[in-house]
Amino acid sequence: MQLLEERIRRDGKVRAGGVLKVDGFLNHQMDVELFEAMAREWHRLYAGAGVNKILTIEASGIGIAVFVAKEFGCPCIFAKKTQTRNIDGSVYTSRVESFTHGRVYDVIVARDFLGPGDRVLIIDDFLAKGAALLGLSKLVEDSGAELVGAGIAVEKAFQDGGKLVRERGIRVESLARIASMDSETGVTFC
Amino acid sequence: MQLLEERIRRDGKVRAGGVLKVDGFLNHQMDVELFEAMAREWHRLYAGAGVNKILTIEASGIGIAVFVAKEFGCPCIFAKKTQTRNIDGSVYTSRVESFTHGRVYDVIVARDFLGPGDRVLIIDDFLAKGAALLGLSKLVEDSGAELVGAGIAVEKAFQDGGKLVRERGIRVESLARIASMDSETGVTFC
Repeated sequence: MQLLEERIRRDGKVRAGGVLKVDGFLNHQMDVELFEAMAREWHRLYAGAGVNKILTIEASGIGIAVFVAKEFGCPCIFAKKTQTRNIDGSVYTSRVESFTHGRVYDVIVARDFLGPGDRVLIIDDFLAKGAALLGLSKLVEDSGAELVGAGIAVEKAFQDGGKLVRERGIRVESLARIASMDSETGVTFC
Repeated sequence: MQLLEERIRRDGKVRAGGVLKVDGFLNHQMDVELFEAMAREWHRLYAGAGVNKILTIEASGIGIAVFVAKEFGCPCIFAKKTQTRNIDGSVYTSRVESFTHGRVYDVIVARDFLGPGDRVLIIDDFLAKGAALLGLSKLVEDSGAELVGAGIAVEKAFQDGGKLVRERGIRVESLARIASMDSETGVTFC
């Protein structure tokens, strides 16, 4: 998606260790006009897929996902991260390893809000190693709902998450796919 | 706001210990049509106040706050919670005590995104003891920005946070103010 790629080129900052800072418009300060345009694009891509629930994960997916829910006219659920192991039977749970933060956490969704008959589109800001996306897709599977696919804002295509997820038969629509990035030469898209 | 009060009466659940569960429409599964209506109401209440930045706190404030930003045609920032003390000089920081979770954390906002000339409206889902709202208002003050006021979805008016915040001269517009609640008789609004 040209609009997002241009914005990343203009305002994104490449830091050491493969970190792309987009906190001026995507995941700290949020450009809601951009989010609306992104939501319209996923709505176009998943038209006719019968999406009736949007699922994201706290925190930085939420701002994007609610505009997608508005496009589809359906509710949006955010999975919660927790490090407590005292989880009762009222939730679906999945373990996720965060490479950015170097820790493992559980993500949970209340059983009340996901189940057979739901057709779920997962929305998140980043796809790198695919841990969060695979964790969310397991929650959907456990619930008996149908996973329609995923909408990702920025995919680091030089990492293996996208390949891993697509090999499992999950449709992934990333609006910006980064082929390579470097703090001197900047970002190259696929 | 009648729409929100009716929804709380219908779908809210009062639990032991003064807990109001609204996770079916407000802070786990999110009803984005309701959020849009709430955003329009705050836009009406703060019309002419020159709001040019929305500030909220992760996670459950974000879904509401982005729709408010859309109404005002301005960016939305979410303050991040962190328990690390290694905070460099690039952020404003404030300590907040969470009574719900029984711990203290720091909230941070990057200096790049808040400063003199900004007129800030704080948005959050709950106001009880006022800790989060006072923490956010300190960040705004430290940045040199002007705090226009706060928009709260649900105020527990039987707790002292609202009084405490208003006594400091901060304008607070809560869309539902709960006078009392009880697991048998339900919720009474102010």
